[in-house]
Amino acid sequence: MGRITTRRRVTRVTVDGGAVRREDLLAVEEPLEIRVGGRALAITMRTPGHDFDLAAGFLVSEGVVSRAEHFATARYCAGATVDGENTYNVLDVTLGPGVPAPDPSLERNFFTTSSCGLCGKASIDAVRTLSAFDVAEDDLRIDAGLLAAFPDRLRAGQDVFEKTGGLHAAALFDGSTGEMLVLREDVGRHNAVDKLVGWALTQGLLPLRGMVLMVSGRASFELTQKASMAGIPFLAAVSAPSSLAVDLAVEVGMTVVGFLRGPSMVVYSGEERLVGGLVAAHPGSREGAVSL
Amino acid sequence: MGRITTRRRVTRVTVDGGAVRREDLLAVEEPLEIRVGGRALAITMRTPGHDFDLAAGFLVSEGVVSRAEHFATARYCAGATVDGENTYNVLDVTLGPGVPAPDPSLERNFFTTSSCGLCGKASIDAVRTLSAFDVAEDDLRIDAGLLAAFPDRLRAGQDVFEKTGGLHAAALFDGSTGEMLVLREDVGRHNAVDKLVGWALTQGLLPLRGMVLMVSGRASFELTQKASMAGIPFLAAVSAPSSLAVDLAVEVGMTVVGFLRGPSMVVYSGEERLVGGLVAAHPGSREGAVSL
Repeated sequence: MGRITTRRRVTRVTVDGGAVRREDLLAVEEPLEIRVGGRALAITMRTPGHDFDLAAGFLVSEGVVSRAEHFATARYCAGATVDGENTYNVLDVTLGPGVPAPDPSLERNFFTTSSCGLCGKASIDAVRTLSAFDVAEDDLRIDAGLLAAFPDRLRAGQDVFEKTGGLHAAALFDGSTGEMLVLREDVGRHNAVDKLVGWALTQGLLPLRGMVLMVSGRASFELTQKASMAGIPFLAAVSAPSSLAVDLAVEVGMTVVGFLRGPSMVVYSGEERLVGGLVAAHPGSREGAVSL
Repeated sequence: MGRITTRRRVTRVTVDGGAVRREDLLAVEEPLEIRVGGRALAITMRTPGHDFDLAAGFLVSEGVVSRAEHFATARYCAGATVDGENTYNVLDVTLGPGVPAPDPSLERNFFTTSSCGLCGKASIDAVRTLSAFDVAEDDLRIDAGLLAAFPDRLRAGQDVFEKTGGLHAAALFDGSTGEMLVLREDVGRHNAVDKLVGWALTQGLLPLRGMVLMVSGRASFELTQKASMAGIPFLAAVSAPSSLAVDLAVEVGMTVVGFLRGPSMVVYSGEERLVGGLVAAHPGSREGAVSL
């Protein structure tokens, strides 16, 4: 937890204004090796901190665990390096009784970079992981005005981003009350989501019915998939979703909102979950080509 | 090439302003399976287009090829699906005579998402790939004023981003003349870089001496590594680099500039390559705590 930022000597340059040497804070990126029962499963490039949650959330995303008791214990591995030092960059998970170890096809060479969250699949067909939870039946309804307040609260909670400008964030909001339950930051957006989902798993909160997952930046396929695996019915992003993110959302019955920037937003799927100032409340809303 | 964007039905919502249904353009994200000699090597979530360049650049990044003749041919695989259709999402690379096939440890389950570029490594020790090129000895010197013009030119070249708001970009600039040689866009920043590097490989331009790689967004470890593998001595990013990105840059002698936003920038490593309005030209530059 003390390694989220690091100080480095930098030179700030302004054209025609000369240069000033100073110390600056950088977001830390380090590899984390996740082992299950002593066998290496994945390496992810992440910002240290909440590593056990990250491992738990990663295993949720991969369909290995879906309940708190599935994830028995986790520990950092001493002796992971040649000189026996504990780097806190290797951890080993013990699964609960009766929980099958990960599919052998997953065991080979997962590797996820700081911006990657879906590694190790053997074929395109295996890209999609089936969720234990059905988000389509989630009857969440959220007021557009409530949703509009989330981006500011996400940003306000981004302690490390404010210091470094270098981290993605993900936060979980209660769709009824608007309460922010948890926020995580990481050099990798998918890691921030895994940390959040892992926290929820160990709190016994899965599936995350009635919740909104809000992410900084864009929404790719992998984020929609992670939300689906955690039973989250609503994904909101500050920027654009990709085509495949929306395709998967439509397939599983998830709401995806993009370009959520205060009072304006674009709904890509599942608009029935948005109420207030909205289609449901404005049956006369017109077709048009309003510029985004 | 016709699948970079796709039209979807969306609803634009403004709180208190109602809702308007319209068509909107989304950035396409689809999986690409890269095979070498008929064997599956990697799957990456990418925006279709420049797929052969993407495969070539991926193989440069992984240390499999470093010269144009190493990459003999590439073709899309018909019959990649059950019904024999060509999805244009599976391609097969034939390496040049005498080029060893990828390390077997790489053959297992590479999988890279739209935001991931370094997959399949078996251990933390293997995260770093050694480059065939030494960027430390590159004597590039670039004027800070010239560099300051790059962000606007990157943005001006981002055709698809302008339409969708959903793509990362990477561009290669000649450090002497400031000419932009190539620009690529993709849902994954690492894919944009691979497409650019693959283009350079097939043009016989590797190592990319005297060149500046400019990327939208942040600079993570994987991007520094890709630049190193392509022999690029200078990496510039619109946002922050991570700690490990800077560590690797220092180790290999690469210049990293972050927060490059017009006339101001922050130099994290290799500042000797920046001249004009700069430290080298301002020996009296003072130490200070100027706020970024």
